[in-house]
Amino acid sequence: MADQKATNVHWHDHRVSSDDRKKLKGQKSCVLWFTGLSGSGKSTIANTVDHKLAEMGKHTYLLDGDNIRMGLNKNLGFSAEDRTENIRRIGEVSKLFSDAGLITLTAFISPYREDRDAVRELLTDGEFVEVYVDASLETCEARDPKGLYKKARAGEIKGFTGIDAPYEAPEKAELVLDSNSKEIDDLADEVIAFLESKGYLSA
Amino acid sequence: MADQKATNVHWHDHRVSSDDRKKLKGQKSCVLWFTGLSGSGKSTIANTVDHKLAEMGKHTYLLDGDNIRMGLNKNLGFSAEDRTENIRRIGEVSKLFSDAGLITLTAFISPYREDRDAVRELLTDGEFVEVYVDASLETCEARDPKGLYKKARAGEIKGFTGIDAPYEAPEKAELVLDSNSKEIDDLADEVIAFLESKGYLSA
Repeated sequence: MADQKATNVHWHDHRVSSDDRKKLKGQKSCVLWFTGLSGSGKSTIANTVDHKLAEMGKHTYLLDGDNIRMGLNKNLGFSAEDRTENIRRIGEVSKLFSDAGLITLTAFISPYREDRDAVRELLTDGEFVEVYVDASLETCEARDPKGLYKKARAGEIKGFTGIDAPYEAPEKAELVLDSNSKEIDDLADEVIAFLESKGYLSA
Repeated sequence: MADQKATNVHWHDHRVSSDDRKKLKGQKSCVLWFTGLSGSGKSTIANTVDHKLAEMGKHTYLLDGDNIRMGLNKNLGFSAEDRTENIRRIGEVSKLFSDAGLITLTAFISPYREDRDAVRELLTDGEFVEVYVDASLETCEARDPKGLYKKARAGEIKGFTGIDAPYEAPEKAELVLDSNSKEIDDLADEVIAFLESKGYLSA
């Protein structure tokens, strides 16, 4: 770099490449896209995977309601258009994080197949890893950790996924996690094993 | 982690913290917000800094027109509202990248002081580093690397910053780079020296 004379014309040759960013981190990057009903365990499993990867020295980031809804997407509501734009923006941001070399986790209900497939299209082959957190409506409603199903059943929340709005389960998910009966920790280990077997955890 | 039984109730205790992410990377994070006229050298300097930091083993990411305008912000035009929303989204995304522990560089004209100050407000003390790439309109117009000033003068582009739209220079930038007379490589070194002196390059 010492003798470089960058110019507007030649500079783009010197842009740090996504491969450079991955090599520095000793890993390949991808987007682990967790989808499932409210209460299925998406966020909990994603956090557990994130934590396990960080303890392994892997470089990760987690996008979820906590850091997206009050920030980037605070000007979006819950209309059909806004839900689609919500997922589109999350898809574009996850693409940037993956380009930065990070193993990127997202945890959003993302109920529409078309919206998830649009994110898949944004990314390169092998970069989008759809993780279906499979828990039945019965299971999720019995857990109801935030009391949302109760409110939806009482008509206090409209357009609630699984009650009066559809959830379109993935048909070609790279990973299906049985969240009806298995423990969070075991499901997280299934994700880690998948990443290891596919070579994401080495450069 | 081995014996952990995560639940929705307790999980947030186990969220990987931003400090954990920075420690893993051996650095502190920040947002280097390059602002200046078209042709001032923002993008070239930011790319040079990015490259030098990557060669030092630092973990970075660069947001600029190349990866933002055709992706996250492709549904925005150049009206006053859209320009503000453009910078707001970039600010929110740069906040996420900084939270992920990365030294984040952004290179956008970002002509309005109010929009830049709104990004500053999003971030914590010391996290927002405004870098004014100071080149006069005369200098930029003489360079005119993309022929845009010529088109703006001919009336083929409307609302062009510096010609028929204002550029509000920073009044409290953390760094001012004299791009009228200094070399790109020397200006990039000034940024690196700033980061070193302020302790950003160690955990």
